[in-house]
Amino acid sequence: MIRLFNSQVSGNCYKVRLLLAHLGIPYERVEVDVVDRSRRPEILGGKNPALRVPTLELDDGRTLGESNAITWYFADGSSYLPTDPFERAQVLQWLFFEQYSHEPFVAVARFWLLFDKTPSEEALADRQAGGYRALDAMEAHLAGRDFFVGSRYSIADIGLYAYTHVADEGGFDLGRYDAIASWIDRVREQPGHVQITA
Amino acid sequence: MIRLFNSQVSGNCYKVRLLLAHLGIPYERVEVDVVDRSRRPEILGGKNPALRVPTLELDDGRTLGESNAITWYFADGSSYLPTDPFERAQVLQWLFFEQYSHEPFVAVARFWLLFDKTPSEEALADRQAGGYRALDAMEAHLAGRDFFVGSRYSIADIGLYAYTHVADEGGFDLGRYDAIASWIDRVREQPGHVQITA
Repeated sequence: MIRLFNSQVSGNCYKVRLLLAHLGIPYERVEVDVVDRSRRPEILGGKNPALRVPTLELDDGRTLGESNAITWYFADGSSYLPTDPFERAQVLQWLFFEQYSHEPFVAVARFWLLFDKTPSEEALADRQAGGYRALDAMEAHLAGRDFFVGSRYSIADIGLYAYTHVADEGGFDLGRYDAIASWIDRVREQPGHVQITA
Repeated sequence: MIRLFNSQVSGNCYKVRLLLAHLGIPYERVEVDVVDRSRRPEILGGKNPALRVPTLELDDGRTLGESNAITWYFADGSSYLPTDPFERAQVLQWLFFEQYSHEPFVAVARFWLLFDKTPSEEALADRQAGGYRALDAMEAHLAGRDFFVGSRYSIADIGLYAYTHVADEGGFDLGRYDAIASWIDRVREQPGHVQITA
């Protein structure tokens, strides 16, 4: 059986759990501490060069890291990834946007606040400013669109939904974002949707 | 003709230029300032939600952002991207590793030093520590391997080469990395290779 090295609170891990739920693929979880990282070389060494979760282990022992690489692997050939080459590249564009311009701000602010790790008010304000820039870009793109790429729910939406829908836990006010709010509703209505706590 | 919104000094832009050189695809360049970013909404607005370079504009006007999404788009179907689904996911793993665990450290330290923008010695030391973690992970993976995925040069190598081969400009000592040094030589020997200055 597939094994997922997981943190239940992590939006990055949630992306994988959400897609596997959509696809009905069973897996077992190994919970990894996200605050005390001292045992990561022992647990994830040789499995993921970044020593991060999620890390996936297939039943034949092959391993894969990076949330958006894992969802790509499972989505390819399903309705959760387009077949058109340019739309596939657009999915990747949004997934790289998520990891570079969204996650380091929205997810890090949330992590600091959830685990009382905020180094300074100034550092938090910097992360929140960056997070608002990412949310502004999402809002502008979603105006008049149902989903991020084409007109269909894909792993681009899964990748961006993971931390956006809990952005309030990072101190973000989502009340100003109408298009994002409607999109969040549409994501939740997808067949097989599960919550981050599931 | 394809148009590349480019910065000559940017490793992210170099990834695209290097792949297009390998593939022999002609394009025109629009040089974008990487220090004064005030005109980016005007130049890149509506083309790239992150307002970053590289941004690609196809001859039909469609646009694509994110260096590693652009190289994926052009590499797919060529020898620069494997056909095996798991190897393709491994390529993505390394490209996401590059954007999350390598570029924000190695490239940012280099940018600060090249353009005299270092905010503090402590901040620089933090970026360099993160960069060395990424280089350590690359060195461990490359020991006994010729290239990052499978045994063939791919856009995973292009993505990681871009900032690694100029890491000295970020204050990194590459002298301690034998496997990386050999890999850099192999990358440079690939047919159609061009330098970052080209």
